[in-house]
Amino acid sequence: MIILGIDPGLRTTGFGVIEKHGARLRYIASGTIKTGLEGALPPRLKVILHGVSEIITTYRPTCAAIEKVFVNVNPHSTLLLGQARGAAITALVGADLDVAEYSPTQIKQAVVGTGKAAKPQVQDMVSRLLKLPGLPGTDAADALGVAICHANSQDALALIGATAPAFQGLRMKRGRLV
Amino acid sequence: MIILGIDPGLRTTGFGVIEKHGARLRYIASGTIKTGLEGALPPRLKVILHGVSEIITTYRPTCAAIEKVFVNVNPHSTLLLGQARGAAITALVGADLDVAEYSPTQIKQAVVGTGKAAKPQVQDMVSRLLKLPGLPGTDAADALGVAICHANSQDALALIGATAPAFQGLRMKRGRLV
Repeated sequence: MIILGIDPGLRTTGFGVIEKHGARLRYIASGTIKTGLEGALPPRLKVILHGVSEIITTYRPTCAAIEKVFVNVNPHSTLLLGQARGAAITALVGADLDVAEYSPTQIKQAVVGTGKAAKPQVQDMVSRLLKLPGLPGTDAADALGVAICHANSQDALALIGATAPAFQGLRMKRGRLV
Repeated sequence: MIILGIDPGLRTTGFGVIEKHGARLRYIASGTIKTGLEGALPPRLKVILHGVSEIITTYRPTCAAIEKVFVNVNPHSTLLLGQARGAAITALVGADLDVAEYSPTQIKQAVVGTGKAAKPQVQDMVSRLLKLPGLPGTDAADALGVAICHANSQDALALIGATAPAFQGLRMKRGRLV
């Protein structure tokens, strides 16, 4: 199973691709899609669409997961972020990928073991879990984190033979079920 | 020039297709894309993507225009609407269409002659301008309205030989420049 994780954003969309082979996770690729700071919205969403499509063509993921976003203090920013996330999801479903959604808390819980972890802790644990030679950038780390979270949730689902809602009650620590 | 107008929404996305031939506008098609009331977001955005793509394949528009949306009282609704609008724009730019954006005020100004028109007035004027046999539904009327607004802004641009920002200062009444 090859999982594409996405950390959506209008300015910067993070992506991370990992392979899950049994209980083992292998790093394949990660990075960011940048739309630049200015310009009309439609061409910027086109950059996200083409970026995500190119990643799919290159790494052939078999499923995808994307971080849930929350309302910003600034409602205008919420609207822009929503549109960027909509573009990323549309690129994924347009390639016929199933898209799972995880909250930042679920992702931190899966990667670090606590839903209140800070960004450097996520970067550090992502690096350890995937045996990276260094720390990924924050956007790429978040994207790899959502991919790891999805990989582990698949494990959890298989273990308990249940459907997604039942998974809510399980606790994960450092990427493992406890 | 065949213009596809979109009134974005998560539950209902309105669309309207018109042809502009010189100063004349001709109705081609209109309707709604409905995603249903329930279910996860990615499959609902997929319905919007496939709906918009099918309209493009069927009516071969040469350009597109979409209504700008504003922040809702409910930030969660703002986020959902943003994602739906992002999906519609992504479907349009994915088909290599240029996408113009107009505010509800600009659209009402272009169609009814006042930026504060009520929905029934928009439906009525859209019906008159396009010589429809009856009133279109509100979502389809808004989508036809944004297409008419785009058709007229093209007129305005040609008249003054200017680029889009200069158009802001012009006033339009009942779909005509005054």
